[in-house]
Amino acid sequence: MTAHDAVPLSVVDSWWRAANYLSVGQIYLLDNPLLKRPLKVDDIKPRLLGHWGTTPALNFIYAHLNKLIVERSSNVIYIAGPGHGGPGVVANAWLDGTYSELFPQVSQNGEGMRRLFRQFSFPGGIPSHAAPETPGSINEGGELGYSLVHAYGAALDNPDLITACVIGDGEAETATLATSWHLNKFLSPMTDGAVLPILNLNGYKIANPTVLARIPEHELESLFIGYGYSPRIVAGGFDDEDPMAVHQRFADTMAQAFDDIATIQRQARSGGETARAAWPMVILKTPKGWTGPKFVDGLPVENTWRAHQVPLAGVRDNPEHLAQLQEWLMSYRPGELFDAHGKPVVELAPARPAGDLRMSANPHANGGLLRKALTLPALDAVAVDITPGDGPSGPGTGAEGRGAVAEPTRVLGAWLRDLIRLNPESFRIFGPDEVASNRLDDVYEVTAKEWQAEVLETDENLSHDGRVIEILSENLAQGLLEGYLLTGRHGLFTSYEAFIHVVDSMFNQYAKWLESSAKVEWRRPISSFTYLLSSHVWRQDHNGFSHQDPGFLDHVVNKQSSVVRVYLPPDANTLLVTAEHCLASRDYVNVIVAGKQPTASLLSLEEARTHGARGVSVWEWAGTERVGEEPDVVVAAAGDVPTVEAMAAVQILKKEIPALAVRFVNVVDLMRLQEQTEHPHGLDAASFDAVFTTDKPVVFAFHGYPSLIHRLTYRRTNHANIHVRGFKEMGTTTTPFDMLMLNDLDRFRLVMDVIRRVPRLSTAYAGLSQKMDDARAAHRAYTRAHGEDAPDVTGSAGLVFASDEDVEEAGDTGDDNARGGRGEFG
Amino acid sequence: MTAHDAVPLSVVDSWWRAANYLSVGQIYLLDNPLLKRPLKVDDIKPRLLGHWGTTPALNFIYAHLNKLIVERSSNVIYIAGPGHGGPGVVANAWLDGTYSELFPQVSQNGEGMRRLFRQFSFPGGIPSHAAPETPGSINEGGELGYSLVHAYGAALDNPDLITACVIGDGEAETATLATSWHLNKFLSPMTDGAVLPILNLNGYKIANPTVLARIPEHELESLFIGYGYSPRIVAGGFDDEDPMAVHQRFADTMAQAFDDIATIQRQARSGGETARAAWPMVILKTPKGWTGPKFVDGLPVENTWRAHQVPLAGVRDNPEHLAQLQEWLMSYRPGELFDAHGKPVVELAPARPAGDLRMSANPHANGGLLRKALTLPALDAVAVDITPGDGPSGPGTGAEGRGAVAEPTRVLGAWLRDLIRLNPESFRIFGPDEVASNRLDDVYEVTAKEWQAEVLETDENLSHDGRVIEILSENLAQGLLEGYLLTGRHGLFTSYEAFIHVVDSMFNQYAKWLESSAKVEWRRPISSFTYLLSSHVWRQDHNGFSHQDPGFLDHVVNKQSSVVRVYLPPDANTLLVTAEHCLASRDYVNVIVAGKQPTASLLSLEEARTHGARGVSVWEWAGTERVGEEPDVVVAAAGDVPTVEAMAAVQILKKEIPALAVRFVNVVDLMRLQEQTEHPHGLDAASFDAVFTTDKPVVFAFHGYPSLIHRLTYRRTNHANIHVRGFKEMGTTTTPFDMLMLNDLDRFRLVMDVIRRVPRLSTAYAGLSQKMDDARAAHRAYTRAHGEDAPDVTGSAGLVFASDEDVEEAGDTGDDNARGGRGEFG
Repeated sequence: MTAHDAVPLSVVDSWWRAANYLSVGQIYLLDNPLLKRPLKVDDIKPRLLGHWGTTPALNFIYAHLNKLIVERSSNVIYIAGPGHGGPGVVANAWLDGTYSELFPQVSQNGEGMRRLFRQFSFPGGIPSHAAPETPGSINEGGELGYSLVHAYGAALDNPDLITACVIGDGEAETATLATSWHLNKFLSPMTDGAVLPILNLNGYKIANPTVLARIPEHELESLFIGYGYSPRIVAGGFDDEDPMAVHQRFADTMAQAFDDIATIQRQARSGGETARAAWPMVILKTPKGWTGPKFVDGLPVENTWRAHQVPLAGVRDNPEHLAQLQEWLMSYRPGELFDAHGKPVVELAPARPAGDLRMSANPHANGGLLRKALTLPALDAVAVDITPGDGPSGPGTGAEGRGAVAEPTRVLGAWLRDLIRLNPESFRIFGPDEVASNRLDDVYEVTAKEWQAEVLETDENLSHDGRVIEILSENLAQGLLEGYLLTGRHGLFTSYEAFIHVVDSMFNQYAKWLESSAKVEWRRPISSFTYLLSSHVWRQDHNGFSHQDPGFLDHVVNKQSSVVRVYLPPDANTLLVTAEHCLASRDYVNVIVAGKQPTASLLSLEEARTHGARGVSVWEWAGTERVGEEPDVVVAAAGDVPTVEAMAAVQILKKEIPALAVRFVNVVDLMRLQEQTEHPHGLDAASFDAVFTTDKPVVFAFHGYPSLIHRLTYRRTNHANIHVRGFKEMGTTTTPFDMLMLNDLDRFRLVMDVIRRVPRLSTAYAGLSQKMDDARAAHRAYTRAHGEDAPDVTGSAGLVFASDEDVEEAGDTGDDNARGGRGEFG
Repeated sequence: MTAHDAVPLSVVDSWWRAANYLSVGQIYLLDNPLLKRPLKVDDIKPRLLGHWGTTPALNFIYAHLNKLIVERSSNVIYIAGPGHGGPGVVANAWLDGTYSELFPQVSQNGEGMRRLFRQFSFPGGIPSHAAPETPGSINEGGELGYSLVHAYGAALDNPDLITACVIGDGEAETATLATSWHLNKFLSPMTDGAVLPILNLNGYKIANPTVLARIPEHELESLFIGYGYSPRIVAGGFDDEDPMAVHQRFADTMAQAFDDIATIQRQARSGGETARAAWPMVILKTPKGWTGPKFVDGLPVENTWRAHQVPLAGVRDNPEHLAQLQEWLMSYRPGELFDAHGKPVVELAPARPAGDLRMSANPHANGGLLRKALTLPALDAVAVDITPGDGPSGPGTGAEGRGAVAEPTRVLGAWLRDLIRLNPESFRIFGPDEVASNRLDDVYEVTAKEWQAEVLETDENLSHDGRVIEILSENLAQGLLEGYLLTGRHGLFTSYEAFIHVVDSMFNQYAKWLESSAKVEWRRPISSFTYLLSSHVWRQDHNGFSHQDPGFLDHVVNKQSSVVRVYLPPDANTLLVTAEHCLASRDYVNVIVAGKQPTASLLSLEEARTHGARGVSVWEWAGTERVGEEPDVVVAAAGDVPTVEAMAAVQILKKEIPALAVRFVNVVDLMRLQEQTEHPHGLDAASFDAVFTTDKPVVFAFHGYPSLIHRLTYRRTNHANIHVRGFKEMGTTTTPFDMLMLNDLDRFRLVMDVIRRVPRLSTAYAGLSQKMDDARAAHRAYTRAHGEDAPDVTGSAGLVFASDEDVEEAGDTGDDNARGGRGEFG
């Protein structure tokens, strides 16, 4: 199996004791790290913050994985699921030398150990969880539930990698974790790596026993057999059992698990075996706070929920506690583990993997080190052909001329197909059963959906090595892509817009990861996380109110502006340039909202590139302003459906009030609206004012909740004149135009808004306003009677275009930088 | 077992066929409901919106439950988990007569059937899912995953109820559903009802097979044994199997399941059995789209993903499709099911339960019918004693006088204890392992945590009938409370503030449920859903960045103002009156954010009542303005920590700039800030201006993201002068005061803000501003050196109070309505 010598269990035990010592030290000690003198009150941190309970088992497993890595040269990363496992993982990284390499001031000696202890959960120091600051981690231990899905995401397309994932029995109760076990149906033994889940049942959460620790063993085993694994249970450390006996049983079990993984992979890769494998998983039952104080103040601590946090809370005030802490630390026999200078003794070396095989140094856990830029296919091959003036423009003109009808996400799907063809091993699409529904199914020309479970004759597009993974859980799609990106690859998550809120909290945690990572010097940039939200609020014709929610954008912009980007491409070509930009970017979260329904294509690819680069553009061809004159009113739009409505409103105005000078503005990069000081994409004041004027009424048709536009623009000169229409939480199962009317975002209402906002129109055109209101009533009546929208507002026929001359002018809008933003896409 | 006659399976089959006929009719037909003439194109809806695939099994199960209810007089509600199951549930409600009772225009005749068909997924009609509009439903079928947790919530404290819960195999992949199975560890066979999960494996989601349908049967069985159930599998309807054979097998299985439930409950209730029961669950495998078209255009449909939505999509254009639809409808032999007038034939009557036993009429599914108001204990017994002027006030004055230190949530816990004592069968607390951490543990004096799994000697506060349910899943806590409230009871969900985002989407769906329910005349008001968010952003001393997120408030206010309420009580007594108000309210979602850390008590119970009723108050005793004069500046605060900081800032100003007139404002009811036209709690313009002035600078210290205050106040006269400090996404593991400094919300920064905002101060007091900045630097240095906050800013000692005179004045602030809002709590 290996040419390396076996690592003696005595060394594994020493490593474990050393890691435990270092963990306790981090929780308690400010000074006197090597206990060269008896502990004094001043050696103790003033605020005892940390979690001991989960730590000894984390260290135990870490030590055993080290043994296997040394013996087999296995390529393993370690995912610490249990909350607050920070001290353990950090202790191991210090013991194997990585920590001091990355943070030289925390050196492998007494002074380094002092700093190691002091910095933990200390102002200016490091968090109590595994975190971006933790070498070897791709999982934050703060919000529980995501360890296993991260492990699976990391293992994809890494055939030689084993992701060892420790799952706490508290974490195992979370929703995401409970469904993550099923991911073994999506892991290819041929082309992916292995995930080795190690469920640590220490029995307790903060203040309660855990479910999985309190069900009979036959249920526990059944559960994991039912999830499709081959479970092995090791229980140990109870009733003062000699740890060496537990080491032996656990070492045997882990060796068997590694053997089983190798066998499964060999059988699959030699082409013999195609049936789904029952991958090994290990259940390790140990006392919570194992090796810590058994009793404190007469109450049992080890193996109870009292071991969860800081078992000796009164160390600074209670001499007995202080003495007990000293005793506890000495029980690890630090004199055998560290030399007089505080350096780990040479006897530990056999349990220390070499170089990048150290789990804390494994480059897969710092994915930017391994990331290779995507090869991006040309957009031209799939872009919608828009040849301004080259054919009759206007409604129903077919493929030629502005207004060619396309389904934006379907056009994107064709490009993604080409992208997958060029990047067959480093790009994946994740979705909750909505990739085809979101009309990206052209990708199935070159790939399929990963599926290791049973396949029937009637199935389509399933295979053992598909680049698309679909399972009906936004949480899993999110977590898989996180794990995939964090290990240096690329991907896209596509979901219905409303249900992306299911992962609001996962987004939060991931954005915070990126925010924190940016401050960690040795973390290398990774590919951005890109959401493609389709099936959006305005086109839920048959799904109704539960499917109508554009609030994810509001949620996203709460995170640091260094990390979040929001795009609302109005048509197919703009979606293409947006996606191209996002997939090439690094260290962001990009949110793209785009429609899947047939809609008018408005910009040629070249125009779309210019528009994307600006983020905000004046579309002269869609407005009625005269060059060199200030407009009377600005009509702005962000989002595909609002853009069509706003354009239609301008056409009505053009016909009914020919003298009115309307500027038409489209916003694709939403963060352009914010001030330059608030967001890196923000327009400077002069550019913003040049587009939106300083004093003219602005009627803004927005895809989402109107308050977001106010939030982004409230410091702008002209803010008081910005009047926003958007989703105001009115929804039901109805036609697209009826939805717009319900929320006052329809073209007729926008015309009424313009009349009301432009002083000289409000009385002169009261009649027109009434006419618009009548049109609304007539459309509502038509819809109720016929069950569909009236013909004059449906599809592209509803978009009445500007004259040919206007369209020709559009070719000239490319370079006026005073009107747009700084180059971003270029 | 029962005195009733057995319902013949032939009648069950007729019922099933009738429900299927009515379901297909809803999806397709505008007219000609009884097929009295051959179908024409004009009989067909212009937009075919609906989902056939899941419907036949929903109808099948419904019919069999009817049989059991009739035979046993069982009290059963029906939860339809599968998405888009609307037509089936509505069809059954029409068949049993409930629908026509609730919606008389949809009568049980041909015209009523025509309306029934037409309204489905039609503008002005009803949604395609089970929804608030659906009689008998407490579950919306739009966002999948919540059926089973709703079922468990409904069963709690309803010992005679069986909640039959149909779970789709798509839904079963969601995170929440996957962990919901474990709820059997929290259901008491003694005092709760039963949940009968029926997992319908029809094999497909929108475009994919499902995981659970494609694993071997032994894994499937193992999985549910592992979850602690006694699973029974019935497969049928494949390969043209005669439905009567499937009826027989399913009827036997369901009868056995009902028998098993009765046995489990009898054994527990007779006191014999205390071990956790292995409740029955049923797995029903049927073809997707069973009884629908087998092939369309040469492609297989029944039993494939093609049956998911509308299997014959071309009915209006393709005569073959139209003919096939006619044939399909006729296959149910409608002539045997409906009389010439369209009324269900009398032969169906034996399968129709009587009155309230009809699942669509069961009052448990319209919980407001059963709801009894809570008996609220007196607040006085637990309130913090504040006797203004009655003792020395100022720092460290102990229990007497303003400033008595209390942990607000602990004080609330004492009241909740009394509440539980008075309402032992209708109030529950749900939490993700944080009830004690959030310091509500006084409730354990009168109750315990529900726990049916193994109990050890060292365990505390676990019992078989506890009023507290804790499992480490926000999703489950949320869903259980939803189910509990929807069936007419009361409760509280307490969670850490940051992680409440885990249920953002569940909140969305629940708020939408309430919004829609309000429009359904026959739905009776239910108790409000109340969140108590503690362990909030400002006091995550040892948890760090992942635990720091106050954004749930932003998320909540996107929903309709008729439904959402947000409270930020600044101290213990205000928390008490807020909680009392919220728990007595109906049909809202209340969000209370309150601290658990020791903090100064600021208001007497009486003052807190007045403050709560106003929502926004001027605290003269905390400011320095002179009666009858306009202040120079307004310092406002919302949230407990910001209130202390803002008060401390005013005290510095009082000392350093004695002539400055500072008005101090506290906001407890956040929605008071919004305009009256936007939110029912909104202050009218005059009241708002009376508090915040029309032209003075306002420095606002806010608990959450500052943009929320701008969002709520942007239309207010004085908005341009409102300067908000709050959380700006800067976080880490550090001391409380360092967190405030990181986000510029500390007292020193607030003083600097006042100096900068009040024109006459900005140059005159540049020195003071510098002094404040120096204080910040000094505190930062102290914290880094000592690991804790400097003594002058910690705990209550950090809150320097106004003079005795000022305190005495506070007693007079009670009635000035011009300064506050309308009575709300009173």
